[in-house]
Amino acid sequence: VMSVAQFSRDQLRHLFAVADDMSQLVSRVGSLEILKGKVLAVLFFEPSTRTSSSFQAAMQRLGGTCIAISDPERVSSSAKGETLEDTVRTMESYCDMSVIRHKDSAAMHKASAIARKPFINAGDGTGEHPTQALLDIYTIRMEFGSVNGLTVTFLGDLKHGRTVHSTARLLALYNVKINYVAPEGLGMPSEIMSWIAERGIEQRETTRLDDVLADTNVLYVTRIQQERFANPDDYLLYKDSYCITPQTLTRASSNMIIMHPLPRVNEISPEVDSDPRAVYFRQMEYGMYVRMALLATLMGKA
Amino acid sequence: VMSVAQFSRDQLRHLFAVADDMSQLVSRVGSLEILKGKVLAVLFFEPSTRTSSSFQAAMQRLGGTCIAISDPERVSSSAKGETLEDTVRTMESYCDMSVIRHKDSAAMHKASAIARKPFINAGDGTGEHPTQALLDIYTIRMEFGSVNGLTVTFLGDLKHGRTVHSTARLLALYNVKINYVAPEGLGMPSEIMSWIAERGIEQRETTRLDDVLADTNVLYVTRIQQERFANPDDYLLYKDSYCITPQTLTRASSNMIIMHPLPRVNEISPEVDSDPRAVYFRQMEYGMYVRMALLATLMGKA
Amino acid sequence: VMSVAQFSRDQLRHLFAVADDMSQLVSRVGSLEILKGKVLAVLFFEPSTRTSSSFQAAMQRLGGTCIAISDPERVSSSAKGETLEDTVRTMESYCDMSVIRHKDSAAMHKASAIARKPFINAGDGTGEHPTQALLDIYTIRMEFGSVNGLTVTFLGDLKHGRTVHSTARLLALYNVKINYVAPEGLGMPSEIMSWIAERGIEQRETTRLDDVLADTNVLYVTRIQQERFANPDDYLLYKDSYCITPQTLTRASSNMIIMHPLPRVNEISPEVDSDPRAVYFRQMEYGMYVRMALLATLMGKA
Repeated sequence: VMSVAQFSRDQLRHLFAVADDMSQLVSRVGSLEILKGKVLAVLFFEPSTRTSSSFQAAMQRLGGTCIAISDPERVSSSAKGETLEDTVRTMESYCDMSVIRHKDSAAMHKASAIARKPFINAGDGTGEHPTQALLDIYTIRMEFGSVNGLTVTFLGDLKHGRTVHSTARLLALYNVKINYVAPEGLGMPSEIMSWIAERGIEQRETTRLDDVLADTNVLYVTRIQQERFANPDDYLLYKDSYCITPQTLTRASSNMIIMHPLPRVNEISPEVDSDPRAVYFRQMEYGMYVRMALLATLMGKA
Repeated sequence: VMSVAQFSRDQLRHLFAVADDMSQLVSRVGSLEILKGKVLAVLFFEPSTRTSSSFQAAMQRLGGTCIAISDPERVSSSAKGETLEDTVRTMESYCDMSVIRHKDSAAMHKASAIARKPFINAGDGTGEHPTQALLDIYTIRMEFGSVNGLTVTFLGDLKHGRTVHSTARLLALYNVKINYVAPEGLGMPSEIMSWIAERGIEQRETTRLDDVLADTNVLYVTRIQQERFANPDDYLLYKDSYCITPQTLTRASSNMIIMHPLPRVNEISPEVDSDPRAVYFRQMEYGMYVRMALLATLMGKA
Repeated sequence: VMSVAQFSRDQLRHLFAVADDMSQLVSRVGSLEILKGKVLAVLFFEPSTRTSSSFQAAMQRLGGTCIAISDPERVSSSAKGETLEDTVRTMESYCDMSVIRHKDSAAMHKASAIARKPFINAGDGTGEHPTQALLDIYTIRMEFGSVNGLTVTFLGDLKHGRTVHSTARLLALYNVKINYVAPEGLGMPSEIMSWIAERGIEQRETTRLDDVLADTNVLYVTRIQQERFANPDDYLLYKDSYCITPQTLTRASSNMIIMHPLPRVNEISPEVDSDPRAVYFRQMEYGMYVRMALLATLMGKA
């Protein structure tokens, strides 16, 4: 699994149905045995507690085990100059599947090309993060019952956020409207917008959240990193207008939802956490069920 | 579990009885299945092979699995500015329990306050280290049959050692005498001594081990770190008198015991290791049984 | 297991027979349960994705679990000045076996001397790496059916490579011829050559691969690190002649094999990977079966 472009609506429907089953089984019995005896390699060349832990928990709750290596650039063979392809061959000698995050998108594509066993992209630089996109769509589906007919607004630095790239592309499989709210110069890349437009999706760009907030069903918030701004003063300018507070939400619909891939820093005030529209913590739990469904499916067990 | 103050004598009696069972089951069958399908998050923001490994082994021997993250300040979301509360929420999305070590005691208390699942403090700065205290008491009980009636002497830097803080407080539940042997300026903090005095425990402070050694049943040795001394010459002065050697032990009772939370550097000479009074290595193994008992109890399985 | 010198031909025969069984069981059922409830400590003071992952996968496929600590010099008690002996005592308090890599050969021997439970050397500085040697011999046996009667050529920096030291010594148990091809000053240490000569093995040293390539059944390639050369120009001189390319292999036998302990950097061109004589990727998988056999044997389960 390298890209969201690999998924059809039918495949998503099947995957999400399996995720529903996983959710019910976990709440009833905690874990399953369907991947008993299977070993998952979890290689994160870039740090991520969240995604790495989510995959490990998913594998363990399916009855399998993990070999997790964090920061392999420093602690591993790649420090000795090994290519990512050789590292993948190594892990495939011992394991039944691999989950990899690496900042070099080209190296990831080369590695996935030589992989003989299931290979999951857990984030490649500013490229894609397909399992985040899957869990985002699953979250919307769980909260609204369906994705069709909704208006989704992405907010923040949409240029560098691989999460929003993958999620926006996957949304194009559904009948939705998409808004992009970003500071100038940090908007959604035009090649992604074109790709989505070709699929007949209505898209709108703005720099002001208030232009689209009232009509938004799903507000998808992402980080804006200060260092991305060419002019530091711009950061201060946008910082507040892009920070979600209880005050912001007075202008939003009562049954919209707020999502965030996390970690959040200042983009969402902690006061918002207790608002019933804040689903970003549930979003993580949904993610585990989606990853369980994906691992089970890739091993031919779902 | 944030503090030893949460435990009553009855709770300890029950916990230690479970630990006895764990000890016997491990020696007979190696491991159990009572936490099968459960996942424990083991997050150490400060390094510790010993405590982290002890919890992992305990969970695995109960049939559960672990997601262990060491040094998350560098490799994880907290490097991106995430609060400890959000990190705990993340781990709780995937796991059934969390064990956390963090140098910031205030952050730990905030995090434990929002935790929805069992949360174990594995050391918070110079604050507490409650599971170390539990295993210390369990060790005394295993070696002497009972804690009551004993004289316990703490030796070393008692100001900064969170282990001795927690253990001394927990001892106050029993009928004991406590001695503190520390260089000037590194004695037991007065608020802890007051807390213990309120519980009717006889306490004595001195700078010389020989004042109390002969009457000591339990000699609890801790490290003195050179950097703690305001005047470096003082370190050299105290270093030798606080280092336990076979020579020191000629002045001690033949059925006393020597404990140490480990790691030890120079405080106990390796020649002492073979003395039957040296129990600090057994102390680690007892620790695993206590942690098994605690994990099982927190999950409602003991 | 500290050294290959501990193994007799009979023990190897038994170990490899068990490894054969492991290989078949893994391909048929994925994993076993014979070490269920057992815990393996995997302590790597020097980085190695490959060896560490191989042991973890081996243990997990035997039904056991692992506590893996990488880079403990930075994250663990040893950072606080603990001796390796105390660290081993710690891990033995919690675990049933230990696998350790450490750059200090003397510390490793001291630690293995106090170990009360099975202890496996996973590489000690420029000393030995016995399990690599076992898997190397097993690879030759799997590819040729037998080790006897073969000519094995070691190529590269033979002075600093602990892998070739252990493997060459273990080969001395068989009826083989051994060639060493190395730049001047980087040849096989004379004490190892003497040790092997005493066992009646024919050995030959040269600086040119072409002197021995045609008669070679097993070409064992290792890295040459630029920093090992006293004169940097020498590196450039030898670099190309010691790099295996499809062109090199035109001068080799059609049924010889090429091995490498990996990671490889430039010593073997990626174009060679698809040559049927390239067995270095299979070598890793064989390694997992050998380690499974070793772990099971040490626990008295094979």
